[in-house]
Amino acid sequence: MELTQIGVIHTPYKTLSECPHQTCKSEQIAEIEVYDDYVGGLKDVEGFSHILILYWLHKATGYSLLVTTPWDAKPHGLFTTRSPRRPNPIGISVVELIERRGHILRIKGIDAIDGSPLIDIKPYVSEFNEKGAVKIGWLEGKV
Amino acid sequence: MELTQIGVIHTPYKTLSECPHQTCKSEQIAEIEVYDDYVGGLKDVEGFSHILILYWLHKATGYSLLVTTPWDAKPHGLFTTRSPRRPNPIGISVVELIERRGHILRIKGIDAIDGSPLIDIKPYVSEFNEKGAVKIGWLEGKV
Repeated sequence: MELTQIGVIHTPYKTLSECPHQTCKSEQIAEIEVYDDYVGGLKDVEGFSHILILYWLHKATGYSLLVTTPWDAKPHGLFTTRSPRRPNPIGISVVELIERRGHILRIKGIDAIDGSPLIDIKPYVSEFNEKGAVKIGWLEGKV
Repeated sequence: MELTQIGVIHTPYKTLSECPHQTCKSEQIAEIEVYDDYVGGLKDVEGFSHILILYWLHKATGYSLLVTTPWDAKPHGLFTTRSPRRPNPIGISVVELIERRGHILRIKGIDAIDGSPLIDIKPYVSEFNEKGAVKIGWLEGKV
């Protein structure tokens, strides 16, 4: 299972510590550069207000199965956190699409480090994702 | 960017044509088997009603940048569709967590083919994902 880089994400965040903890907190404009070989796949993207971005967390190294987060002092299972240090360091963000200029997508709401390899773009369709009332375990009341 | 399989998804769907078009349509119970090396990362997962699953679309081969979908007859940009045939065939589903039994997660709402390699599990937190009113381009009124 080998991934192919299809573009690159340009943001003002140069290190992990500069990144906001979750994308919903970020009003920062960023740019997604889609490589020429893949630009044809962007046809009709302008009609979408939000898109789902998958990218490689290229600055994350190693992982622990129990992690502490900014939300509390207890260790929690890695898979109940969004820690970038994971067996497969893939980041997911739902971002607002501001504008498309050729192979550049100007977006709002991403916490990626500058230079993160782009892996995929999918349409964001709320019916597919929104679940109404959800329980969020140990994160309840913290986010 | 090499991925590591951390588990496997067990579903009744043996071929792509048996899969529902979107996970929201599926009431089928499925099981996610997390390999022993990663079970420690499931601590506290029981508190979550929904989790986000990343998996490898192992039966998808090749891709086209323009694709037609079940929704209409026009070709659309690949990245505005959820076609499994993509440069990086990674599937994402938000699923309902019914029960955890050790290294098995019983879930509802996935359209993966039986045997799909598990790549990652993340907590589903609606505040991170729900965007209120969204525009969905050519998909409007179709889903």
